[in-house]
Amino acid sequence: MTALLPHHDGSPLYVSHDAPALGDVVMVRLRVPTGYGPLRAVRTRSNPDHEPEWTDAVAIGTTDGWDWWQAPITVRNPRHGYRFVLIHDDGTVVWLNQTGLHRGETLDAEDFALVANPAPPAWLYESVMYQVFPDRFARSAQADQHPTPEWAIAAEWTDPVDPVMPGRSQQFYGGDLPGVIEHLDHLVSLGVNLLYLTPVFPAASNHRYDAASFDSVDPLLGGDDAYVRLIEEAHARGIRVIGDLTSNHSGDRHEWFQAAFGHPGAATESFYYFTDDGNTEYETWLGASTLPKFDWSSPELRERFVSGENSIVEKWLRPPYSIDGWRIDVANMTGRLGDVDLNAEVRQLFRETMLRINPDAILLGESTNDAATDLQGDGWHGAMTYPSFTRPAWGWLSEPTDRPYLTAEGEERTEPWFFGQPIGGIPRYTARDFADAVVRFTAGIPWRVRLGNMQPLDTHDTGRFATNAAPGAVPVAVGLSMTLPGLPVVFAGDEFGLTGADGEASRTPMPWGTESDAGVAERLELYRGLVGLRRRHPVLGTGGMRWLHVDDATVVFVRESADESVLVLATRGDADLELPAGALAGPAEAESLVGDATLAVASDGAVMLAADGPAFAAWSLPGVPAPAA
Amino acid sequence: MTALLPHHDGSPLYVSHDAPALGDVVMVRLRVPTGYGPLRAVRTRSNPDHEPEWTDAVAIGTTDGWDWWQAPITVRNPRHGYRFVLIHDDGTVVWLNQTGLHRGETLDAEDFALVANPAPPAWLYESVMYQVFPDRFARSAQADQHPTPEWAIAAEWTDPVDPVMPGRSQQFYGGDLPGVIEHLDHLVSLGVNLLYLTPVFPAASNHRYDAASFDSVDPLLGGDDAYVRLIEEAHARGIRVIGDLTSNHSGDRHEWFQAAFGHPGAATESFYYFTDDGNTEYETWLGASTLPKFDWSSPELRERFVSGENSIVEKWLRPPYSIDGWRIDVANMTGRLGDVDLNAEVRQLFRETMLRINPDAILLGESTNDAATDLQGDGWHGAMTYPSFTRPAWGWLSEPTDRPYLTAEGEERTEPWFFGQPIGGIPRYTARDFADAVVRFTAGIPWRVRLGNMQPLDTHDTGRFATNAAPGAVPVAVGLSMTLPGLPVVFAGDEFGLTGADGEASRTPMPWGTESDAGVAERLELYRGLVGLRRRHPVLGTGGMRWLHVDDATVVFVRESADESVLVLATRGDADLELPAGALAGPAEAESLVGDATLAVASDGAVMLAADGPAFAAWSLPGVPAPAA
Repeated sequence: MTALLPHHDGSPLYVSHDAPALGDVVMVRLRVPTGYGPLRAVRTRSNPDHEPEWTDAVAIGTTDGWDWWQAPITVRNPRHGYRFVLIHDDGTVVWLNQTGLHRGETLDAEDFALVANPAPPAWLYESVMYQVFPDRFARSAQADQHPTPEWAIAAEWTDPVDPVMPGRSQQFYGGDLPGVIEHLDHLVSLGVNLLYLTPVFPAASNHRYDAASFDSVDPLLGGDDAYVRLIEEAHARGIRVIGDLTSNHSGDRHEWFQAAFGHPGAATESFYYFTDDGNTEYETWLGASTLPKFDWSSPELRERFVSGENSIVEKWLRPPYSIDGWRIDVANMTGRLGDVDLNAEVRQLFRETMLRINPDAILLGESTNDAATDLQGDGWHGAMTYPSFTRPAWGWLSEPTDRPYLTAEGEERTEPWFFGQPIGGIPRYTARDFADAVVRFTAGIPWRVRLGNMQPLDTHDTGRFATNAAPGAVPVAVGLSMTLPGLPVVFAGDEFGLTGADGEASRTPMPWGTESDAGVAERLELYRGLVGLRRRHPVLGTGGMRWLHVDDATVVFVRESADESVLVLATRGDADLELPAGALAGPAEAESLVGDATLAVASDGAVMLAADGPAFAAWSLPGVPAPAA
Repeated sequence: MTALLPHHDGSPLYVSHDAPALGDVVMVRLRVPTGYGPLRAVRTRSNPDHEPEWTDAVAIGTTDGWDWWQAPITVRNPRHGYRFVLIHDDGTVVWLNQTGLHRGETLDAEDFALVANPAPPAWLYESVMYQVFPDRFARSAQADQHPTPEWAIAAEWTDPVDPVMPGRSQQFYGGDLPGVIEHLDHLVSLGVNLLYLTPVFPAASNHRYDAASFDSVDPLLGGDDAYVRLIEEAHARGIRVIGDLTSNHSGDRHEWFQAAFGHPGAATESFYYFTDDGNTEYETWLGASTLPKFDWSSPELRERFVSGENSIVEKWLRPPYSIDGWRIDVANMTGRLGDVDLNAEVRQLFRETMLRINPDAILLGESTNDAATDLQGDGWHGAMTYPSFTRPAWGWLSEPTDRPYLTAEGEERTEPWFFGQPIGGIPRYTARDFADAVVRFTAGIPWRVRLGNMQPLDTHDTGRFATNAAPGAVPVAVGLSMTLPGLPVVFAGDEFGLTGADGEASRTPMPWGTESDAGVAERLELYRGLVGLRRRHPVLGTGGMRWLHVDDATVVFVRESADESVLVLATRGDADLELPAGALAGPAEAESLVGDATLAVASDGAVMLAADGPAFAAWSLPGVPAPAA
């Protein structure tokens, strides 16, 4: 990989408008280092209705050592894929797609892609998300007024998390929404501006993914009133709030399921997959009898849940709640069972309904593995997904561990898993492996959707990154989550340095009051700095992305817009490298933003970067000059 | 690439049965060279309903230097993807999918895949296809009885093909079906056993893709009776026959279109996309007004064309015609327009209908570029497709040419195209580029469907391979078409050494009577030999496929079953290479099948291969010993 290669991505430098309608002509641009080539022709190849269509690019000018080419593309499909082909004077043919440059023809799935569905609200790209698991975030005085529910095993705030059933799902700390309100200023001080709450509906577990209703907020959390107040208080602080909805299943205590279970002919019978005449056997989520799976072939379910008057989806988007969007749980399995696959219909129904109710709301879907097929812009604005950032970051920046831990059944696990994968623990990636994985798992996703993909280091479903972080690697990992294209996420507690070996153990109650402890204060400062970096530099939200250097220890990339460039260096080992002259706009004006690293510009314009690792560093540089349209 | 790597593919050595039903348990096997590893565990990772599921493999034995592992997979989706993960004793994690071995996680799209739809008839894999373009194949005495139709420009059999409009589509040589019957023994002598005829319906062009009816055979070709007789005569010789149907469009003279054009409210109005009130404007194939596009949202069209009583699809499959299947023209665009995509519904409807009428018939779809999304086993048994074999073979084994040729408009083209791609002519591939392209464009396709993909060197839509073949490269290219996994295809005339710069010029009348000319006799002998090779060795139809050696000049691979292995060497330059001991089963018993190349076995079991290129060579070896199930 060199820093001087032809480049295109879906960012504003290269695409005249990224929210076209069908039939619109979009101008797409390619920049080529002046020393590359010479080129006889540059063309685009689209594939409307699965039949190739070509346009010619014309050279429109040279700025700062780069030749710019521009070509028109008429958007003909909702996902309109395209690639570039560069025809060299010597006859060599080179193709450019989202995986880079290729000597041979490339796959449709890895094309760049324009999306003709309405774009998500721009605020999505200005957001840093903060994830809260309500039972473990903060317990207000008001919580003492609630009796412990029959299903729960009460815990003191300082008790250790119990990863073994029944405690695993029933250990109850009693965090509530007034507790969240009391700590909203903590979110403000961190700089985050999008609050994602895991479910708040009544349920029979501490995680509440087994909803007993979607129609009210759990009284244990403070009920509807507390939810309204939380959202108002958050909005007053410039913080948006999204909810969490399970579209794959409900809890077995859900009013819809209770009405149909054992009651053939019930009105909500069609909502589930009952497999016997008596409505007592049914499909579930991965065999969990408490989680009956929804049957999305039911028109009534579609109406009640999503598209009908005052549906669940609609109710909470409307005042007095006015949430700013939804994160959809188990979006990957929703509507899929055996030879039935209604997933596209369901995610499109969600999107259409939300567009009608509040086009300023966002819609994210959980899809924790390769999510490309579901992320073509027709439904989810982005995904909670792990293979394109989270797992590669762990692979590169963790220390493998053989520490045993307890399973849900209370067995000591001797062969560690990795995000639910029985692959012997955390894999050992180089920086190159990390970069390869980022490219591989984003190449199938249109740029616009990639920007909406969540980029957490961990969540309530995973171990905490800090648990296994290599010495000094936390700043590198947090820095990458804030600077790579995607939606940064802080899982509440990471900023306190919490650890936890798996998704259960990571649901640690927040250690309020420890903010001044030495380790904690430093970690908080790290987060404040890096969240602030992201928020202060919009180019990190929507700017282009070029890899400039990748080796086994180090990655260097730059995010670019017409207004600003941000150069990023991340290294686990020591870095001492040179970028060729012309790789960056105005390197002599580089201003350090964060990190202990040196940047020096040689007389020929080459840029020398050096750091003692592990290190994360970023610099602000001028924007990229591009020819006028 | 080395010859000693863990291997799996979808062939019978590795899959207990390749035509499972949903819910069936299939045993899948992995073979690992004994020198590789050591391995702590081998697992499979499936993704039913888009959620990972894992099974453990167990070591079941070692044969001939390979350790065999076996794991159960329960088939849960119609396309059930899976991959292997190899966990080494030192903690290294390696994934195996259809693109090979990887240090990092891999894409769902490149998983191995079982297909739970009914399998195609086994004869598909025993076939070598022969493609005939009726107007140019043979003219019987009977043809003289027909007047030249009003649209046609009569040509003598020895006239040159006119690539310029109107001759391009109207030049009429008058080949007919009785002419084909007269030459069926030529097919027998070649050894081909599947005859694919491009359309035989009445039309207003020499190619007949602008059908005026799907209900009768063009009288100019001899009519229905000649078609019946041809199929009977072919069947009597052990040759199956498939037809060619345009599902994307009809001709504008089609009875359905004529009934609706200018007649709002007509019964067949819904069959097309009329865009004005008067039914005079309509969607077409790529702007050709003679080819109005079908609207597959019409239930009436679906019935008349495919699924209804005595539909078009059904009529020709039934006696007295009894064709053995369909090749569907422009399958890639069928049902697709703008934001509508009914392609999956339509191809599934074809398949379901054909299964009902004659499960022993095959269904192939034209999809001349990356066809992976449409080739998941739900519809087409295989595709007429070019990126996975045809174009890579040209890229590797042709000489680039600057020879200008005439466009449809009669302009001399100065910048040559390549299969319709404006990329400056034939790209210059190495053998490595060829192998990379074969892997890249088959990795997204289940093994079963890959075996059904047509593997032509050229067709009626392309130039002829021999036109630009590098000196001595024709045997290499023909040899590869017969030995790589896929359905070999001979476009009538290739066996006579015909040339033609593009799809039009390649529709040359067959030069009957030249069979004894020196160059022709040699070329016929080449084809007879290589078709015979394929026919005599069933392992070339369904056997596994391992690449053993790839460099810039040479590829070496082996097709393997329990009964036999066929080792293949193809080189454009000179080959002199060594395969490590253990790479092949029983190399000392290797028997040369074709080609001038030497195979020597060293005392340590290594295999030395050498050839002066260009060369194509194949050897028969013992089958692969595998542990008992």
